[in-house]
Amino acid sequence: MTESGKPILYSYFRSSCSWRVRIALALKGIDYETVPINLIKDGGQQFSKDFQALNPMKQVPALKIDGITIHQSLAIIEYLEETRPTPRLLPQDPKKRASVRMISDLIAGGIQPLQNLSVLKQVREEMQLTWAQNAITSGFNALEQILQSTAGIYCVGDEVSLFLYYRFKVDLTPYPTISSINKRLLVLEAFQVSHPCRQPDTPTELRA
Amino acid sequence: MTESGKPILYSYFRSSCSWRVRIALALKGIDYETVPINLIKDGGQQFSKDFQALNPMKQVPALKIDGITIHQSLAIIEYLEETRPTPRLLPQDPKKRASVRMISDLIAGGIQPLQNLSVLKQVREEMQLTWAQNAITSGFNALEQILQSTAGIYCVGDEVSLFLYYRFKVDLTPYPTISSINKRLLVLEAFQVSHPCRQPDTPTELRA
Repeated sequence: MTESGKPILYSYFRSSCSWRVRIALALKGIDYETVPINLIKDGGQQFSKDFQALNPMKQVPALKIDGITIHQSLAIIEYLEETRPTPRLLPQDPKKRASVRMISDLIAGGIQPLQNLSVLKQVREEMQLTWAQNAITSGFNALEQILQSTAGIYCVGDEVSLFLYYRFKVDLTPYPTISSINKRLLVLEAFQVSHPCRQPDTPTELRA
Repeated sequence: MTESGKPILYSYFRSSCSWRVRIALALKGIDYETVPINLIKDGGQQFSKDFQALNPMKQVPALKIDGITIHQSLAIIEYLEETRPTPRLLPQDPKKRASVRMISDLIAGGIQPLQNLSVLKQVREEMQLTWAQNAITSGFNALEQILQSTAGIYCVGDEVSLFLYYRFKVDLTPYPTISSINKRLLVLEAFQVSHPCRQPDTPTELRA
């Protein structure tokens, strides 16, 4: 926390996992300060000694809050939910909570890790785009099918519980449910203020 | 659930994520039936039409319980914890709960997805072992450092909260904390009965 007691978010503007935490902070109205960690500049600022001491996984996001440092975006959001329950990000019904967590884990554990920069670097350069798109496509095929039975206005019923995202320009036409939920989320204020194009470390040419 | 009302676990004996759920079921004393899904036989039984209808991600584990089907091992365990709280698998203190979830997500989201069969298949065959070992090594380097500050007898303090595992014969010498927690867990009854070498679908030559 800062001297003023505000939580500190270590974040990279275009990191999807950082964005997920920014959305949760915005939805819950938690004031925080951003410390930008540029994953590309200086060979990757996440590899600095200082940052490694903070998060040995050398990944963003990390959140300093209440005297502890938490990393892993879903662990951070669960902590915020337990300590700042209003407005809630998980439904009250345990079965619906299970659906939210299943969908979040599918995205955060089944899709994103495969398209992380550190993983893509291990794939031959000419194969990287295909690799990332394969990961997204196979995940989205599953997700579309799951959402058809869980979704209301948002992923699980009519309450906002998590956010969807896409990178690497995957065509969303085959995924009407994902696509329409995504559109409904992106207009919400919490998604707007936390958007990659509107962060303290967003380069001028990408700002909007 | 079966006609007798027992939950059904779709499981593969050597899948680490299936084992994680088997451990949780055993720790909580929940009686269940196993439906083995062989990830290799018949080109992978997870690709069958029937199983895909159950889990569009085509992965084990999946648990049919209380009239719903949950996949993603950590989502399953969180559901069990919320609906069958005794004995608890998460500490009471929110900060310690955050540590448990951070460590679980690091393993389930930061290490395991990179060494899944479906991912390894996309890597050139002669590189597969190195790829898997790289994923484990970089995850374990971080985990060892984190556990040094969170661990008591087990990962977070002195209560069992999750399980560690290793495959692909990674040398654990550089990871004394991981190694000793692992040893302490493996002797527990819940870890013994759920062990890959003791499942209904364990081939005779691997039984112990």
